[in-house]
Amino acid sequence: MAGGMNGAESLVRTLLAGGVDVCFTNPGTSEMHFVAALDKVPGMRCVLGLFEGVVTGAADGYYRMLGKPASTLLHLGPGLANGLANLHNAKKANSGIVNIVGEHATYHIAHDAPLTSDIQGVAAPMSHWVKTSPSSRTIAADGALAIEAARQTPGQIATLILPADTAWGEADGIAEAAPPAPPRKVSDDAVKAAAAMLRSGERATLLMGGAALRQPSLELAGRIAAKTGCGILTEGANTRLERGAGRVQVERIPYVVDRALGVLREAGNLVLVGAREPVAFFAYPGKPSRLMADGARSTKLAGLDEDMQAALEALAAELGALATPPARVAAPRRPALPTGDITPAAIASILGAMLPEGAIVVDESVTTGREFFPETAGAPPHDWINNRGGSIGYGMPVAVGAAIACPDRKVIALVGDGSGMYTLQALWTMAREGLDVTVLIFANGGYNILRGELANVGVRNPGPRAIDMLTIGRPDLDWVAMARGMGVEAARARTCEQLVKGLNAGLRSQGPYLVEVAV
Amino acid sequence: MAGGMNGAESLVRTLLAGGVDVCFTNPGTSEMHFVAALDKVPGMRCVLGLFEGVVTGAADGYYRMLGKPASTLLHLGPGLANGLANLHNAKKANSGIVNIVGEHATYHIAHDAPLTSDIQGVAAPMSHWVKTSPSSRTIAADGALAIEAARQTPGQIATLILPADTAWGEADGIAEAAPPAPPRKVSDDAVKAAAAMLRSGERATLLMGGAALRQPSLELAGRIAAKTGCGILTEGANTRLERGAGRVQVERIPYVVDRALGVLREAGNLVLVGAREPVAFFAYPGKPSRLMADGARSTKLAGLDEDMQAALEALAAELGALATPPARVAAPRRPALPTGDITPAAIASILGAMLPEGAIVVDESVTTGREFFPETAGAPPHDWINNRGGSIGYGMPVAVGAAIACPDRKVIALVGDGSGMYTLQALWTMAREGLDVTVLIFANGGYNILRGELANVGVRNPGPRAIDMLTIGRPDLDWVAMARGMGVEAARARTCEQLVKGLNAGLRSQGPYLVEVAV
Repeated sequence: MAGGMNGAESLVRTLLAGGVDVCFTNPGTSEMHFVAALDKVPGMRCVLGLFEGVVTGAADGYYRMLGKPASTLLHLGPGLANGLANLHNAKKANSGIVNIVGEHATYHIAHDAPLTSDIQGVAAPMSHWVKTSPSSRTIAADGALAIEAARQTPGQIATLILPADTAWGEADGIAEAAPPAPPRKVSDDAVKAAAAMLRSGERATLLMGGAALRQPSLELAGRIAAKTGCGILTEGANTRLERGAGRVQVERIPYVVDRALGVLREAGNLVLVGAREPVAFFAYPGKPSRLMADGARSTKLAGLDEDMQAALEALAAELGALATPPARVAAPRRPALPTGDITPAAIASILGAMLPEGAIVVDESVTTGREFFPETAGAPPHDWINNRGGSIGYGMPVAVGAAIACPDRKVIALVGDGSGMYTLQALWTMAREGLDVTVLIFANGGYNILRGELANVGVRNPGPRAIDMLTIGRPDLDWVAMARGMGVEAARARTCEQLVKGLNAGLRSQGPYLVEVAV
Repeated sequence: MAGGMNGAESLVRTLLAGGVDVCFTNPGTSEMHFVAALDKVPGMRCVLGLFEGVVTGAADGYYRMLGKPASTLLHLGPGLANGLANLHNAKKANSGIVNIVGEHATYHIAHDAPLTSDIQGVAAPMSHWVKTSPSSRTIAADGALAIEAARQTPGQIATLILPADTAWGEADGIAEAAPPAPPRKVSDDAVKAAAAMLRSGERATLLMGGAALRQPSLELAGRIAAKTGCGILTEGANTRLERGAGRVQVERIPYVVDRALGVLREAGNLVLVGAREPVAFFAYPGKPSRLMADGARSTKLAGLDEDMQAALEALAAELGALATPPARVAAPRRPALPTGDITPAAIASILGAMLPEGAIVVDESVTTGREFFPETAGAPPHDWINNRGGSIGYGMPVAVGAAIACPDRKVIALVGDGSGMYTLQALWTMAREGLDVTVLIFANGGYNILRGELANVGVRNPGPRAIDMLTIGRPDLDWVAMARGMGVEAARARTCEQLVKGLNAGLRSQGPYLVEVAV
């Protein structure tokens, strides 16, 4: 063997050389040589998940915090399939991920053994880049291509399929991924068109998304808003929004169509910065798919593949706003702690009162959390992460990845009970890795969003069978028991006082803590 | 609306007319009209799963017991993706299933909303039949086609994609699925070739699979074996094997390659009845993929799409064995109850001593259960179900479906802890539906099979990182707490006496019960 290196080792070394030094894993037999290589080669942090949805969601959360890809290790087609839903969410969030998916040895595939499936077919719908590496002498170069694909601007899902004999055969060495290309600069025309829209005297709004939701860009947006009187909005769900006291504050387009239409009527024309013309999450009979106000126009200043901050600088310069003090800077404000019954509004106040500086909030609160923004706007600076793909079960896995990425920040996961059940195995990974995550489970005993959606799609007076399909009670879930069963300390809150106590316990803890919040 | 019926209702009525009267569901907004139709139309039993892997696995278990398809209701591409791994297993088991997958309204798809994905692409690798129904006036006819596809011999995975406007628009009525065609008869030549192989004087074995594992066929095999001296084997994993005292007894080909090679050297030439020439589950360096003995031949008597029982009758007639008393009939035998430490052998004896008549054993015991067959062979008649697709997390969901299919039989799920974690949400469905399932979780604290596989693929002296990736401890899982958290009563067994007590409690219970078995 050249240098004593097999294909698996050449791939691990290639990943490390490309800066991919975390691997979220759920391996099987076909990945054993890769696992062995992880031992032999120092430098790769390996994090085990007991279900693949945890693994892929964690890689998403990691990218959202660090802007660089982690790898995953998945077992054949079904293992990849189990991770697809959170890859869907990651793809919609433009997170870069390098999936390593084991496959039978090339000569074994034709025998149609039990675990044989069309892995490329499984990967394709949720990947930007898919390749099966044919031999141990090509796997390093293919690994480098996967890294390059994942590191595009914006990030991409790259799925590299590793047949077992590609892993165990002889390799020639490692390969080096080309450094990521800088994002493209926007044209002068794009800047001038945006400036013209903002100067036109018609009502206009900057609609921001993606990496433009970091404070350097948001501050430029605030200067432009101060100069021109335009609004600033974000899409309904954001990959990561930097917000809190002293930062330029933005509102999200609401989920509910009628409310979104109202907000966008106010917004007028849209200057798009890493965002698209807004559309409804779902179609509803008699309601529009496109949400922009009638007669409103949009112009694209910069897309996710472009240098959005430079575009905003150019726009601010064009408007003479570079030195204008930004508008909409959030004043520090800690709401008073409420007492008594837990309501969504009370939870919002408690979060606003208690969010620690530097917190990473992973928000899968669904219906409970629709009003969390105003009360938390004046809390110390923090990040707020939403689900971009809409597939539930993203919250706790993304929290795992965010905590691995940022070990000295507190992660707070806000999760509906229906959503939490999809990937509750994430709690075990939090316990194993001692991750500093506080999970609030909002236990309303149902898919509450669907109770509203039944009416929204025109179903009146749903009967008992329909209601039963939207109800998680009978039996009620005991999240304290489930969390403890996976090694995570937990408490139950039925009053605001208990929620404050539970949240405090989580914030003081260095490891994971869960509070079941009865709402 | 014609007759006041929308597309969703026409589909529900079409399913019922086609004998599909159970729906395992995990719906979302795009499926709300289907949910409403379930209320309006009597006759469909709806069973909610809190994760789609539970839903699809349950449909698999249902088909294995009744030989007729259930339907599933899944939410868009990611919801289907979450169910894919158990659809893979169901596909490899030739289980018929009608998946109903919601989709955005047809006009909404172009807007690329968060949950938009290539649903046909997600479905294809794990489906035999996929169609997106274009309108509310076509959905009934397409539903009938899906039923026909699922009811083929052998069963198929049929995935019908239902855009929201197809569900809510006007329909013309229901459609009727053509009745299933009877399975094809085998040719005289196939019978003569099999007879010639069995008469040749060379060592020969009947290798049986699929629906040939029911006693009428096995009894014919026993008569043929008595007449000719041939062996009888099954593949390593079976869809459903009828066995126990008074029934013709068969052994499975072992999972471990070297042991399988030994068994197949003994077996000689193979007469295939619903089975294929045996192959290794995985490839290993230096070991063969094909497991048949060197120089051995095979002949196919009947495939899964053919009338295997009629073929065996014809073969027995050809051999003059129709009246020969069958060989290998299992004598009634109840092993003595062991005491003390729990070992795999002790568990086998306890199962053999305690399995009730008519039990349905769903076996996902992986390494722990490799020796369960000899000690249970003389227990009262029961069914034994294995994972045909190799994707772990099939056991508890299949048990849900088997219990729905056969409410007056006891279901016993034997599940490794690593496997169980994939789809533990099944416990909640067992509790909600009051299903008579006793779950034994074999808690060895790891992916034990992989510890062996590391060595099998040639990895010597694995280091701490590799071992860590195969170990579920740190923290240990507390299955009693997790089960109770989902409403299932549970106990822990660290000795044989405790296991006997726990299993007894489960067998006496009318509802679900879990025993965590320390092995």
